[in-house]
Amino acid sequence: MARRAISTVTGGTARSVLGIHVFHCPDVVGIVAKLSECIASRGGNIRSVDVFVPENKQDFYSRSEFVFDPTHWPRDVVDNDFIKLSKLFSAEKSIVRVPDLDPKYKIVILASKQEHCLVDLLYKWQEGRLPVDISCVISNHHRPPNTHVIRFLERHGIPYHYLPTSVGNKSEAEILELVEDTDFLVLARYMQILSGRFLESYGKDIINIHHGFLPSFKGGNPSKQAFDAGVKLIGATSHFVTQELDAGPIIEQMVERVSHRDTLQSFVQKSENLEKQCLAQAIKSYCELRVLPYQENKTLVF
Amino acid sequence: MARRAISTVTGGTARSVLGIHVFHCPDVVGIVAKLSECIASRGGNIRSVDVFVPENKQDFYSRSEFVFDPTHWPRDVVDNDFIKLSKLFSAEKSIVRVPDLDPKYKIVILASKQEHCLVDLLYKWQEGRLPVDISCVISNHHRPPNTHVIRFLERHGIPYHYLPTSVGNKSEAEILELVEDTDFLVLARYMQILSGRFLESYGKDIINIHHGFLPSFKGGNPSKQAFDAGVKLIGATSHFVTQELDAGPIIEQMVERVSHRDTLQSFVQKSENLEKQCLAQAIKSYCELRVLPYQENKTLVF
Amino acid sequence: MARRAISTVTGGTARSVLGIHVFHCPDVVGIVAKLSECIASRGGNIRSVDVFVPENKQDFYSRSEFVFDPTHWPRDVVDNDFIKLSKLFSAEKSIVRVPDLDPKYKIVILASKQEHCLVDLLYKWQEGRLPVDISCVISNHHRPPNTHVIRFLERHGIPYHYLPTSVGNKSEAEILELVEDTDFLVLARYMQILSGRFLESYGKDIINIHHGFLPSFKGGNPSKQAFDAGVKLIGATSHFVTQELDAGPIIEQMVERVSHRDTLQSFVQKSENLEKQCLAQAIKSYCELRVLPYQENKTLVF
Amino acid sequence: MARRAISTVTGGTARSVLGIHVFHCPDVVGIVAKLSECIASRGGNIRSVDVFVPENKQDFYSRSEFVFDPTHWPRDVVDNDFIKLSKLFSAEKSIVRVPDLDPKYKIVILASKQEHCLVDLLYKWQEGRLPVDISCVISNHHRPPNTHVIRFLERHGIPYHYLPTSVGNKSEAEILELVEDTDFLVLARYMQILSGRFLESYGKDIINIHHGFLPSFKGGNPSKQAFDAGVKLIGATSHFVTQELDAGPIIEQMVERVSHRDTLQSFVQKSENLEKQCLAQAIKSYCELRVLPYQENKTLVF
Repeated sequence: MARRAISTVTGGTARSVLGIHVFHCPDVVGIVAKLSECIASRGGNIRSVDVFVPENKQDFYSRSEFVFDPTHWPRDVVDNDFIKLSKLFSAEKSIVRVPDLDPKYKIVILASKQEHCLVDLLYKWQEGRLPVDISCVISNHHRPPNTHVIRFLERHGIPYHYLPTSVGNKSEAEILELVEDTDFLVLARYMQILSGRFLESYGKDIINIHHGFLPSFKGGNPSKQAFDAGVKLIGATSHFVTQELDAGPIIEQMVERVSHRDTLQSFVQKSENLEKQCLAQAIKSYCELRVLPYQENKTLVF
Repeated sequence: MARRAISTVTGGTARSVLGIHVFHCPDVVGIVAKLSECIASRGGNIRSVDVFVPENKQDFYSRSEFVFDPTHWPRDVVDNDFIKLSKLFSAEKSIVRVPDLDPKYKIVILASKQEHCLVDLLYKWQEGRLPVDISCVISNHHRPPNTHVIRFLERHGIPYHYLPTSVGNKSEAEILELVEDTDFLVLARYMQILSGRFLESYGKDIINIHHGFLPSFKGGNPSKQAFDAGVKLIGATSHFVTQELDAGPIIEQMVERVSHRDTLQSFVQKSENLEKQCLAQAIKSYCELRVLPYQENKTLVF
Repeated sequence: MARRAISTVTGGTARSVLGIHVFHCPDVVGIVAKLSECIASRGGNIRSVDVFVPENKQDFYSRSEFVFDPTHWPRDVVDNDFIKLSKLFSAEKSIVRVPDLDPKYKIVILASKQEHCLVDLLYKWQEGRLPVDISCVISNHHRPPNTHVIRFLERHGIPYHYLPTSVGNKSEAEILELVEDTDFLVLARYMQILSGRFLESYGKDIINIHHGFLPSFKGGNPSKQAFDAGVKLIGATSHFVTQELDAGPIIEQMVERVSHRDTLQSFVQKSENLEKQCLAQAIKSYCELRVLPYQENKTLVF
Repeated sequence: MARRAISTVTGGTARSVLGIHVFHCPDVVGIVAKLSECIASRGGNIRSVDVFVPENKQDFYSRSEFVFDPTHWPRDVVDNDFIKLSKLFSAEKSIVRVPDLDPKYKIVILASKQEHCLVDLLYKWQEGRLPVDISCVISNHHRPPNTHVIRFLERHGIPYHYLPTSVGNKSEAEILELVEDTDFLVLARYMQILSGRFLESYGKDIINIHHGFLPSFKGGNPSKQAFDAGVKLIGATSHFVTQELDAGPIIEQMVERVSHRDTLQSFVQKSENLEKQCLAQAIKSYCELRVLPYQENKTLVF
């Protein structure tokens, strides 16, 4: 809504939408010039261009926002135009997204007994602050302890699948079927480890929230680990899932102060609050095309 | 130094410097395209472009950073190129700056008895974190209470001018002479009000630090005002000086928590800490061409 | 729950509850000694004592937390013991509260069209994070725009009273009846001014949330005032209501950064977020006996 | 100075000083009562008492601040009075300190090539914000790269000892002699590991600053480790030195945000800024008797 209010030069009757473009290619002179020329030649108007060229590397990364009138620059022509640029610069990555025209990202949320992140995502989704479609929720617990969750899901027609952990990854096969046409997955405190075979078969991004300040406190019960270590700040980390446990590229981290007055229980409560914010922020950034893989095991967050 | 390490495509022997360009003109399609084309055609490489078009306004503001090789794109040609663009788009403002090639901004600092801001600016200047040349320091106090200041100024060859407040703005005439060839002025807790006539004669920007959270607590003794009001947060405000006292466009504001345990004295101490940071930040932003006047009495800080 | 887990010296079968005591009296030697002796003589155990004696004043303020076994120190004896101390030190104020034994504070929330604060308080109340009983909600709007609110209130048996603003303060008389046996009132963005007569008749504390950083931006539309002033930080202020509009003792203030990219609409949204936190924090502090009136128009928040 | 302004009941001519007392003993009823009775019986006036009893433990920890008139309660009698209480409650720890009467803590700072922490401590010391006497500075570098440091030390009569790292801990023996009559040691980025034998011989507390967010990134080059891990927040940790490298009880931790735009160099710079604050804060807390060892490997910071 706010987007459509952005001024355009084509007068009052025009409808102007926001486009986002990210680009990764070898660094040469004139990439921004070509990008902006392409946009301008179609009557589009650039809002911002953020460029990143790592020190001592010949790599170019950019993220652009522009507004345009889709009656003058049809959505499929936008794609074609950027594909041409992509070829021109031998780009490794070129994604364009028009939130008002494109289908929302389709996701599946995997959860477990600790539901605070699931509840928070559903709440934000209902408020319109999580620009995704939730295909279903998968849990390895029969029913969520919180009956509000089930009622909420029923009211919104979101299926809840109970897939208990089983021998031989039988449940993983079922999960694979359920997530087939999603754009990415969200592990909202899903306490199971997904196998390398699963990651390979799925092939798309999976965002996890870890209730510890990685790379400290990997694996089980990080709050207990932090409590025993006597840290003065606890943290949460959202990251991409890779084969190595809790070691994928970090997207976002947040911390909060603790003291000797904190008990293990209050560590857990403070952590839960961090986890909710950290995971929601990571998903939001991801949907706005702000998160790019970078170097071997890092992210770049525009 | 770090700037020169930025990668360029022209090979190891080239020398690459950073250029900054700000632009303000009526909003039309293709401004970024033309700007980036201009830069690319000279072998320059854009680092970032930040564009701002106010809602429902036909106004375009941008700030660009680019690296270029001045042997291929000489400094005066840079200017000419941007002047052409400026004419093309009927720009109200077009400034280009190449920190490594251009003379540093020349400033005069006006101070008074409270020296914390002056001392902080001198310290930052010595550390190389304040990219300006200080022509002189003007004070309405005979000698700074802190003898370190005088020794510091002597060691660095910066004159200290004692100009007592006098009848009929006689001192203002002397100040005008001393600041003649400066780029802007800094009032580092200068407790005198500069007359409208002075502002007009000087004609360039003057940055002031106010020890209160404007628009609350204008005028004298804002810490006392805040203390009496029982506020729970105190603030400092750096702003441009206009004829109306403490009412010019705000550049930066910072706050800090206070409680009933704070005395008027600790209000003052906490405020001084805020003032130093707030003023230094405003000057830094200003020198990096991040601060633009905006609308009647606001700033835009890229 | 957590409170009962606090260790006691009387062994595993004992039941230990938390007591809170605040005290305001002329400052003499030995007040803490007498207070703690009184508590210890009854088998109580002090958790913390916070004392405040203003500079150059003979005023003593304290807030103590202690755990005790009510079978050994019955609730009414606790009261009697502290009343004796109160007389001994000619205390102006001596309040004792045992959250696990005493009735919850009874409040009425007054709201209007902007419901974000009301919704937030109800949500926190349901989660058990607002230790009050809500007698009813009074609004000068017929029905809340958000039907969730009405459904929520119905589900929890909280009456919703529609009292339109009327000539001659007729509605104030009705409000007075409805709030008769409350402990304090909360104005959750209630956009009406309560008359001096009402304040006098009610005679107890009223906590208001103002959507501006007081003492700046009193009165109507503070977000618009802040937007026009070009501030770089916006704020919210919770305070006690007095006869002078938006000028009562400040309890809590919070701020958030804004920039030229913010619109009036985003000012309002950011402000709403601050208002919710600021009001909830003020109520929580108040219920925990942390907030005391101090000097003419200030608060002291332990 | 501010301390002496605190109000007393004994009239204008009295001189009132601040006393601090920390206590650790088995938890029984009435400890605060006895402590405050002891203070009141001598005409002292309690400012604050902070008590901590860990959940499910019979351990009592407290820190009290009180003002008293040393002509009525002489310094040595203060000690005797608290020793009696200490015996009464079989205290493991009972320390009393009167900053205005007691000798300042005597410390030695051990430094190395990275001087930012040393410089910061000297600067704060000169400003009167570090309440210690610095016996000398020991470094394993011949002369500090920054000649200001040497000039500063000379001007203030603080010896600079160059003790190169050598085979067989020969330098440790020399260090032991130099630190003999200190109260504690500060490792201000001293890049050598002190042997277990040294720690045992010295026998007092040693505060170290680690340029990483422990327990992540122990050992060498933590900034590089953090950079390679792609973290979004970097940290610094001040802790007590124990035989296990970078694993002693944590006193204070601070973090700062980093992004893909940060280079290893800017990681180091941001870290240095954190280290300075974190180390100075730990020393300040320690001198104010706020830091107590707690459980096996933690601290309690009042």
